[in-house]
Amino acid sequence: MQPEDLLKQVAFIKEIDKLKTIQRRTKLFHSDRPENDAEHSWHLAMMTIVLAEHADKPIDVLKVLKMVLIHDLVEIDAGDTFLYDAEKDHTNTEEELLAAQRIFGLLPAAQAAEFIAIWQEFEDGQTDEAKFARAMDRFEPLLQNSSNNGGTWAEFNVPFEKVYEKKKAIRKGSASLWQYAENLLKESVERGILRKDPPAQND
Amino acid sequence: MQPEDLLKQVAFIKEIDKLKTIQRRTKLFHSDRPENDAEHSWHLAMMTIVLAEHADKPIDVLKVLKMVLIHDLVEIDAGDTFLYDAEKDHTNTEEELLAAQRIFGLLPAAQAAEFIAIWQEFEDGQTDEAKFARAMDRFEPLLQNSSNNGGTWAEFNVPFEKVYEKKKAIRKGSASLWQYAENLLKESVERGILRKDPPAQND
Repeated sequence: MQPEDLLKQVAFIKEIDKLKTIQRRTKLFHSDRPENDAEHSWHLAMMTIVLAEHADKPIDVLKVLKMVLIHDLVEIDAGDTFLYDAEKDHTNTEEELLAAQRIFGLLPAAQAAEFIAIWQEFEDGQTDEAKFARAMDRFEPLLQNSSNNGGTWAEFNVPFEKVYEKKKAIRKGSASLWQYAENLLKESVERGILRKDPPAQND
Repeated sequence: MQPEDLLKQVAFIKEIDKLKTIQRRTKLFHSDRPENDAEHSWHLAMMTIVLAEHADKPIDVLKVLKMVLIHDLVEIDAGDTFLYDAEKDHTNTEEELLAAQRIFGLLPAAQAAEFIAIWQEFEDGQTDEAKFARAMDRFEPLLQNSSNNGGTWAEFNVPFEKVYEKKKAIRKGSASLWQYAENLLKESVERGILRKDPPAQND
């Protein structure tokens, strides 16, 4: 390691403090206060170490942790995109790629390349680690909204069908977590905190 | 795994949300807003994956990550203790042990035992992983205070000698990080943001 590498690493460590100021739409559990991206990333990391045994395939837990810890850093430049935003697709925007290059680019070159690759692997969602990490990212706000009288589902009037479609990502990572999640969604409809429209009449 | 184990894990995941409401004395980088324990834990996890190569001994990075992610959970019950608090010693209080038993005790028994053991290993500070994790825990507020015109050093009028004594824990985990930290402390005295009293005259 070159001595200047540590200076680059410290510059990165200072820069990523900004993640604590990026607000999500989702609120804390049993709270009106919006969660920020750093808190969210910590919670996903905790969920990863607690729930790893539920992964359908053997996973490299250290890699999943790296994914969830860094997955939202691009939002320091690109901002948070609400999952149910109809205007803007979250995945792999040019803006996020530029953000990844700038922010991870503060690190020594080899480490920057490693982190960008891990972030890209998470975004692509194809490997077993990425599938599990993405399941965590969908599972946390599901638990929050169901603990918060519907949370952002109610606030933005998002229907069951749309939520169900997004939450299906959990199934790609874990059958047992998906079973729990699916029940929680149905229960949320029954409790009246998630809107499910009656089927259209065709007569 | 028993089906009720997932229910216990979800109960734990919801309970630990409270870490986001435990405020530290230290402020965010370049900010007046106090950091909370969840943000702090995320930042230590990021520092661990970025700085692991500086560890003097080979370390199990996954174990260090678990340590820094969970190390402050006991503060949900026991509250944050300020590092320079003269009244209360932070380490291994009875209150913290009871908190660990209650909070980790929400998990299935085997997992609860694993997490309590990891937390205890961090508190004891004897293994190479614990030494590195504790170095991270001392390094983050050093970077914050030196970025914040002295931060809590200035606010609570803590002298160089006391800060230096506490920061020596960094040396146990990493010689190169300690070299950087020691220089930063000296530089902070020179910049006038860390008080160093002149030696007492004995004539």
